[in-house]
Amino acid sequence: MPVYQATVSAPVNIACIKYWGKRDTKLILPTNSSLSVTLDQDHLRSTTTSRADPSFEKDRLWLNGKEEVIAHGGRMATCISELKRLRREVEENNAAEPKLSAFAVHISSLNNFPTAAGLASSASGFAALVASLAALYQLPASPSTLSLIARQGSGSACRSLFGGYVAWQEGTAPDGSDSLAVEVAPREHWPSLHALICVVSDDKKGTSSTSGMQRTVETSPLLQHRIKHVVPERMRIISDAIRARDFDTFARVTMQDSNQFHAVALDTDPPIFYMNDVSRTIIAIITEYNRVSVAAGGKLKAAYTYDAGPNAVIYAPEENLKEIVELIVNYFPQPAPFKDPFGLFGSAGVGEGKLVEGFNAAVAKKFPVGSVKNLIHTRVGDGPRKLDDAEALLGPDGQPKSLA
Amino acid sequence: MPVYQATVSAPVNIACIKYWGKRDTKLILPTNSSLSVTLDQDHLRSTTTSRADPSFEKDRLWLNGKEEVIAHGGRMATCISELKRLRREVEENNAAEPKLSAFAVHISSLNNFPTAAGLASSASGFAALVASLAALYQLPASPSTLSLIARQGSGSACRSLFGGYVAWQEGTAPDGSDSLAVEVAPREHWPSLHALICVVSDDKKGTSSTSGMQRTVETSPLLQHRIKHVVPERMRIISDAIRARDFDTFARVTMQDSNQFHAVALDTDPPIFYMNDVSRTIIAIITEYNRVSVAAGGKLKAAYTYDAGPNAVIYAPEENLKEIVELIVNYFPQPAPFKDPFGLFGSAGVGEGKLVEGFNAAVAKKFPVGSVKNLIHTRVGDGPRKLDDAEALLGPDGQPKSLA
Repeated sequence: MPVYQATVSAPVNIACIKYWGKRDTKLILPTNSSLSVTLDQDHLRSTTTSRADPSFEKDRLWLNGKEEVIAHGGRMATCISELKRLRREVEENNAAEPKLSAFAVHISSLNNFPTAAGLASSASGFAALVASLAALYQLPASPSTLSLIARQGSGSACRSLFGGYVAWQEGTAPDGSDSLAVEVAPREHWPSLHALICVVSDDKKGTSSTSGMQRTVETSPLLQHRIKHVVPERMRIISDAIRARDFDTFARVTMQDSNQFHAVALDTDPPIFYMNDVSRTIIAIITEYNRVSVAAGGKLKAAYTYDAGPNAVIYAPEENLKEIVELIVNYFPQPAPFKDPFGLFGSAGVGEGKLVEGFNAAVAKKFPVGSVKNLIHTRVGDGPRKLDDAEALLGPDGQPKSLA
Repeated sequence: MPVYQATVSAPVNIACIKYWGKRDTKLILPTNSSLSVTLDQDHLRSTTTSRADPSFEKDRLWLNGKEEVIAHGGRMATCISELKRLRREVEENNAAEPKLSAFAVHISSLNNFPTAAGLASSASGFAALVASLAALYQLPASPSTLSLIARQGSGSACRSLFGGYVAWQEGTAPDGSDSLAVEVAPREHWPSLHALICVVSDDKKGTSSTSGMQRTVETSPLLQHRIKHVVPERMRIISDAIRARDFDTFARVTMQDSNQFHAVALDTDPPIFYMNDVSRTIIAIITEYNRVSVAAGGKLKAAYTYDAGPNAVIYAPEENLKEIVELIVNYFPQPAPFKDPFGLFGSAGVGEGKLVEGFNAAVAKKFPVGSVKNLIHTRVGDGPRKLDDAEALLGPDGQPKSLA
C-alpha cells in the first residue's frame, strides 16, 4: 500500500493595502480589496504535511506538535472538506485514481518563527494547509482557485498562495466565487525589495483582528468612505507602481494605507489601538529618513506598515537596508550586533547605531534595550514550495515527528 | 485726566465636537462647526487689563509679564484693530464719547495655569484680550459679535466668550460674518457637569495645531467625509443631549468625536500623533468603567476627550468624580493625596487608588509616579467676568505690575 502524503511550505505575506472588515463573516468576504508582498520562505514559513490513509479514523491536525480540535463547521473543517470535494471531482473524472477523498487525513504543521514574534501565522498556516492537501490530492487547481479555499480559513491566507506581489480582489458574487488572490507581479519582476521586521514588546493584550474588524464595520463612520472611495484608487496606483518598480509611489501609498487602517481602528467605538509609543517612534524615524532624502532632491527610501499589532514592517530597496538598520539600532539598541542573512552588513554586522547626514536626532528619544526585541531581515519571496518526503512532519505511524 | 482701562477674566473651553481644519486661514474660518464646554474660571483663567492713553506711543502687549511683539497684520494686531474700529463707530454715533480709538493701548495678560500644564491658553487668552478691550471701549457688542473678532485671534477662542455649552457655527459667508459662537445652554441649565484634567508627561514635541490641521486638510482623504457627513449630525445630537441633560448621549458622542479627530490626524501624511501610551491607557480605563456600568444595566458614567496633545479631559456628572479619581490614581499613583476644590473627597482627599466592583484590573498596567503629573478638577463655568480696577494688571506707569 503506497503512502499518500505531501509536504509543502508556504510564506507569510504583509499587506500594503490593508484588509479590514468582512461583508460576509462565514465565507470571509472582505469589504475591500487588498494587496500584499509575499516574504521569503527562506526566513519565515509554515510547513505542513498532509497524509490520507484508510487506517485513519478521523481527520486530525497538529500545530507545532500540539493537537488542535478540528471544530465541526469551523474554518479548518471547511478548508479540508472543500479540498476533499475537489478530490472527489478528480476521482469521478478518472476511475483509476485512488479514492483518497474517502480517507481521513492527518495533518502536521510547523511555523519556523515563534508565536512570540508577534507575527500572524494564520496566513502562512492556512496557505500551507490548503497547498499540502492540494498536492496530496494532486488537484489540477490554480493558485487562484486554491486561494478561494484558503480565504475561508483566514482571509489574508489567500494572498500566501502566490509569491511576489499579490492582490486579493474583493469580488462581488454573494457566494464568494470571485473573491480570490491574483498575482500582480512575480518576485522576479522586482526582486530587490527587502523587508525589515521590528518586533516590538507590548504589555497589553490587543483586540483580535477578527473581532476588531467587525466592530469597525459596525461603528466607524469613516470606514465606509475608505471602502468606497479610497481603497479602489489606491489599489490601482500601487499595482501600477509595482509594475513600474516605482518604489517612491509604492512607499507613499503603503504608509498612507497603514495609517488609514489604524485611523479607522481608532474611529471604532470603543476605539482600537494597535500601535504603541515604540511603533510611533519608528514612524517618526522613517518619516525623518524620507524627509532628508526628499529635501536633498531624492525620493522616498523606506516605507513602514503595521498590521493588527505594534510590530513595524519596513519595506525598502536592498541598498537602503544598512542605513535603516543603523537608524533603528541608534534609537533601539540591540544586545548583540545585528547580522542579516544576506551579508549586507559584513561579517561584524551592525552593532552601533548611526544617523544619516542631515537627520534631526531630536525626532525621537533613545529607548532601552529590549524595546525592539528582535529584528528580522527578509525580502520578497516565492509562493508555496513542494518539499521532499524527507522533510515530512509525520512519521510512519501517522503521528507528528518529534520536534526535538 | 481719567484712566481708561478695563480688566476682564476669560475661561478655558474644551471641545466635545472638535475643530480641526480651516477653510480660510487668514479669517480663521473652520471646515466644520464645533461645540465645547466652558470650564470654571475659579480654577483656570486668563486675566487681561487693557488701557488706552494718549501718552502711549504704540500698542504694546505683555503676556505673563513678558512683552510680546504685536506683528503687523498678525492675529493680535487684527483683534486690536477690529475693536478700535468698533470703538470708532461708537464715537461717531456720540460726539460726547472720548476718542479712545485714537489712543494706543497697553495690554497685560496673565494665565493662572502654567504653560507647562499643557493646556492651550490661546482660547482663554484671546477671549480675555477681546473682552477687556470691549469693556474698555464700552462697546454695545453681544458676545457673539465679539466672538467674530476673537475667532480671528485663535479659532477656538470664539467659544470662550460664553459660559456653559457653546457652539461655534461654521457659517457660509466668505467674509466670515456668520462664523461665530452661540450659547447652546447656559451653565445654570446643567451645572453638575464636572471635568477632571489629567496632565500627561510627554517626551516629544508635538505638531502645532495650526500647522497640523492644515496638513490634515491637504492630505487626509477621510477628513472630507467627517466634515460633510459626520459632524453636522453629531452637532445636532449633542446639542439635543445638552438641552435634555442626557449625559449618556453627550458622553458617547464626545468620545466618538475625540477618537475621530485623532483618526483624521493619523490619516494625515505624514501622520500626526497627539496621544501616547498614557493617553491610551486612560481611554482603556474609562472604557472599562463605562462597560461595567452598562453591563449592570446602567449608563455611561464618564467621557474622555483629547485635544492636540496627550492630556485627557474627563467629563462626568459630579457624583461619579470620586470613583473616577480613584481609578486614575490606581493606575497613575500621585505623590500626595489629591484634594479637589469642591471637597467632594473629604479633607483627606484621595490617596490610594481603588477599582469599582466588577472592573477588570487587567485592562491597563500601573504606571510609575509622574506619568500623570497633575490632576485638575473643575466643572462647567461662566463666561468672561469684568473685574475691579483693584485687580488690574497694569500699574500707574502703564507697565505690567510685578508678578511677585
